[in-house]
Amino acid sequence: MKLVFEKNSLLSGINTVMKAVPSKTTLPILECILIDATEGEIALTANDMELAIRTVVKGRIEEPGRIAVEARFFSEMARKLPESDIVLTADESGVIQIVCDSTNFRFPGRDASEFTGLPVIEHEKYISISQFSLKETIKQTIFSIAQNENNRLMTGELFQVHENELKVTSLDGHRISIRKVKLKDVYEDEKVVIPGKTLNEISRILPGEADQEVLIFFQQNHVCFEFDQTVVVSRLIEGEYFRVDQMLSGDYETRIRINKKDLLDSIERSTLLIRENDKKPIILDIEESKMELSLNSALGSMKDELLLQKQGKDIMIGFNPRFLIEALRVIDDEEVDISFVNPKAPCYIRGEDGSYLYLILPVNFSGARA
Amino acid sequence: MKLVFEKNSLLSGINTVMKAVPSKTTLPILECILIDATEGEIALTANDMELAIRTVVKGRIEEPGRIAVEARFFSEMARKLPESDIVLTADESGVIQIVCDSTNFRFPGRDASEFTGLPVIEHEKYISISQFSLKETIKQTIFSIAQNENNRLMTGELFQVHENELKVTSLDGHRISIRKVKLKDVYEDEKVVIPGKTLNEISRILPGEADQEVLIFFQQNHVCFEFDQTVVVSRLIEGEYFRVDQMLSGDYETRIRINKKDLLDSIERSTLLIRENDKKPIILDIEESKMELSLNSALGSMKDELLLQKQGKDIMIGFNPRFLIEALRVIDDEEVDISFVNPKAPCYIRGEDGSYLYLILPVNFSGARA
Repeated sequence: MKLVFEKNSLLSGINTVMKAVPSKTTLPILECILIDATEGEIALTANDMELAIRTVVKGRIEEPGRIAVEARFFSEMARKLPESDIVLTADESGVIQIVCDSTNFRFPGRDASEFTGLPVIEHEKYISISQFSLKETIKQTIFSIAQNENNRLMTGELFQVHENELKVTSLDGHRISIRKVKLKDVYEDEKVVIPGKTLNEISRILPGEADQEVLIFFQQNHVCFEFDQTVVVSRLIEGEYFRVDQMLSGDYETRIRINKKDLLDSIERSTLLIRENDKKPIILDIEESKMELSLNSALGSMKDELLLQKQGKDIMIGFNPRFLIEALRVIDDEEVDISFVNPKAPCYIRGEDGSYLYLILPVNFSGARA
Repeated sequence: MKLVFEKNSLLSGINTVMKAVPSKTTLPILECILIDATEGEIALTANDMELAIRTVVKGRIEEPGRIAVEARFFSEMARKLPESDIVLTADESGVIQIVCDSTNFRFPGRDASEFTGLPVIEHEKYISISQFSLKETIKQTIFSIAQNENNRLMTGELFQVHENELKVTSLDGHRISIRKVKLKDVYEDEKVVIPGKTLNEISRILPGEADQEVLIFFQQNHVCFEFDQTVVVSRLIEGEYFRVDQMLSGDYETRIRINKKDLLDSIERSTLLIRENDKKPIILDIEESKMELSLNSALGSMKDELLLQKQGKDIMIGFNPRFLIEALRVIDDEEVDISFVNPKAPCYIRGEDGSYLYLILPVNFSGARA
């Protein structure tokens, strides 16, 4: 086996597949990258058995072959090599030699046959979406998946395709985030729950160009993302996702329109008074055309006042400030609409065009208005 | 007490004195910043009893006073406040109120009388040096102080003033770093050992302008750095520093001149093969007009070859690669001169103009040339 790489294509290929290399495992082969040059192109693959990534890197095959190599070591080496062509050879006994300019490294590889490759992908049911939209949609919903595994379904996101719309939902028991994206074509209905970890890695790998597409293929137990020269395959989370629609209501008693940045900045400042594990609510007191925000903790107290437009009743309601912050951070609008029913019912932050909906449950606090 | 600050001057003042706020202590008052507006200016001071920093911030004193405030909390708050004037008041009971735009924070301060201020500074013996030179000189020597406290003197740097020269020396038992800086004036002879921690903090605080000066005042047990609106006072390390001069020799059997960047890059690459705590030497085999570098470890092997100019004998010698790397990184010259005596004696990397000298002890390895 003898391959010649440009340093930068090799590096970017390694960085892409590294996302599927587990940091700790008892199976050393999982910490490897497979270099496969047996099919007329040079492919790098990593697979942690939940998530597998394969990418093609530019290079010249002088002698075809396959070998596995310890991923972190190979990645560090590629970074430190001189800016020159990299010649990789592997001999019969599995010893790899890297020659780059005057530098020469020798180290043992691993038998490629130990390596588990990608599951077989059927290319039947799919959608096409711009890299930019997919990356944004993940960012705008991923924060409200559950962090612990008590309920596996909550650790993933529901991807629903209906005609020319993709709807993405995440929830953790305290809040629900929903984003809708228009697609260019009409597709067959589809409904899968994709692990949060997969989506996080996808959004890190995706260059995110608006004029470049990602194809998402749906199958029985897997989902597959294809873009540029890269394929990402992930297991799905099995089970029936929560019926979210019945939790959503259009009724409200109070509805406000407020500058998003001012509201976000003020809530962020209030968190100064919160030490970790301390669960102090921020209290919003909406009266006439202003909101008074206040938070009290063992460290001190904060008050702030913001102007707003209001329809309906006055209300006083408390929230976990982090939940409001995480939703407001991913909303691009200058002003947001928030509707309330009563101090014990969720609030809804809704996009005018219906492209987003964030539902957040309030928290109890002493001194609520009747 | 009532003070009005511009956000940015307050922030930069806090950042400066924060360097003397210990991260963990059993004395809560040490984690505070003293705000003192009793002498016609607003001064912030922090003091961890080894190192004390005082800086003056711009602002308006509407009512003089002094109060101490928890440093990390105050720093975070200043960062998160809106871009507007900050009004700080403290009442008789020590409650601090911060008003900035519509935001209002209240939290308890601490009695200023608990706070230990700066030691008294005599302004007799001193030198003046450019901020840039001091910052560079520290960076170029600080890496070879000892990390553990077995020998206190090794955890500091020797500052020696002789006529119009400042000489800075550090050593850790395996290597010695010496830098000389020309001063604009002639000063009285002086010799002190300054703690490495102090020098690290000074080099972080110093803006490092070439046309701005630092005054260094020497006293019995303290050293004091004055620049811009800031004063840093540190304890000295007591005791007789090592007699370094007798360890330095001008004799050599081999002397080479080599491109610094190529040598540094090659040695840095070799460290890929070293896992922490693994003590593998890099072996330099100098023969005629080239150097072969090699390193073998459990992970693999590396070889490289560099061209050089040589005077004297061939030599094969081993070093801890980190020691070579740290010295080469802080040398600005394109080419370096290295002289050797034999494989058991230190090598010397010397500046042509005498401005620097790095001595590094070799390590034993099997297969040394006679």
